[in-house]
Amino acid sequence: MAEVKVFKSIMERNDTAAMKNRKLMNGALCLNIMSSPGAGKTTLLEKMLMAARKKIKTAVIEGDVATSNDAERIKKYTAPGAVYQIKTENFGGGCHLDAKMITNALRKVGLPRKKYDLIIIENIGNLICPAGFFLGEDKKVVIISVTEGDDKPLKYPGMFREADLVIINKVDLLKHVKFSMRKVKENIKKINSRTDVLSLTATRMQDVKQFTAWVEKQRQNTAG
Amino acid sequence: MAEVKVFKSIMERNDTAAMKNRKLMNGALCLNIMSSPGAGKTTLLEKMLMAARKKIKTAVIEGDVATSNDAERIKKYTAPGAVYQIKTENFGGGCHLDAKMITNALRKVGLPRKKYDLIIIENIGNLICPAGFFLGEDKKVVIISVTEGDDKPLKYPGMFREADLVIINKVDLLKHVKFSMRKVKENIKKINSRTDVLSLTATRMQDVKQFTAWVEKQRQNTAG
Repeated sequence: MAEVKVFKSIMERNDTAAMKNRKLMNGALCLNIMSSPGAGKTTLLEKMLMAARKKIKTAVIEGDVATSNDAERIKKYTAPGAVYQIKTENFGGGCHLDAKMITNALRKVGLPRKKYDLIIIENIGNLICPAGFFLGEDKKVVIISVTEGDDKPLKYPGMFREADLVIINKVDLLKHVKFSMRKVKENIKKINSRTDVLSLTATRMQDVKQFTAWVEKQRQNTAG
Repeated sequence: MAEVKVFKSIMERNDTAAMKNRKLMNGALCLNIMSSPGAGKTTLLEKMLMAARKKIKTAVIEGDVATSNDAERIKKYTAPGAVYQIKTENFGGGCHLDAKMITNALRKVGLPRKKYDLIIIENIGNLICPAGFFLGEDKKVVIISVTEGDDKPLKYPGMFREADLVIINKVDLLKHVKFSMRKVKENIKKINSRTDVLSLTATRMQDVKQFTAWVEKQRQNTAG
């Protein structure tokens, strides 16, 4: 019983902080990007920011257990002070980002004083725990790479159920791995019939335009 | 404070159950196999059991959030009743196996009545949470696939710190991805200087012999 009570109080505090985050975001569209380790979140962001940085004023919050590698990669494509790295090992090796970590990170990138069009949260590489924690985002994006197998939506339903967009990444490797695009799309639909789906190779600038167009559409919908 | 107390009591209960599991295992070597989703745990086991099933009497405990897909795949290569599937969504969508789940699973595969040489626990696809829970195993095996990137040991140190063996999988894809074998080995050593390391392609029977030989060596050490 003590466990249930503690769990409930953690989730309630998280949701209160998430609602506070929404105010801090000051009208920006916020995306929470989630995937397994190495599915291509940072590469997708690099390419997207490379193309869109002049049009879309973006802040990026990087979540990792350890290292600032991802923030260092992203800094090249954003304005000074617009990237903040959260290391969850400072919070006991955490397997997900929670809304309170994001409150602090939003302040670090200058909110609510600064005005951003877009706030991207790159969550910890983990296909389970991050799904349970609302951070104040407008949309959840889940990335799956074709090297992981087409059964993953069925095996990790919690994450795919929450997605507003599923990106099937590394399609350039399709000919080298056992992976059916038809099956993965069927499996996604079984778990979540309303999500958008894109398939691409995040290292190809041409492919990433699909994602940038999706982001633009969400921005218009949020503003409208 | 209530949170710390609850956490401590969860870990204490886990360790008590893990010690009970060791007795239930009845002298078998037990391996806890961990990785990201889709790194190749089940494929490695299929191939290993295919070659070794006549020599090594093996029980397999499969952990997944949802589906019995993995148990179904493994059943083809084991004796009747020697595979048990744990679905953690029945326990609230859990992101790791705990020792109590394993106690139940060990009984389901017939222990301590039956005598096995080897017990394999295929943990949930997650590079963070499973590292924190001792299940009663003799050795921890961590699999990383070359498609995940050579920085993963540094980004998920908790898991790699615990490993007795790190398997670098899908080396057949090396020529198609940005991944340095030298760097990943350096990164593994930075986190854990005492772990064994193997690199292989789990779909190739020839390659999997390295792993089977490693398992045999552990069995001799445990028995000796």
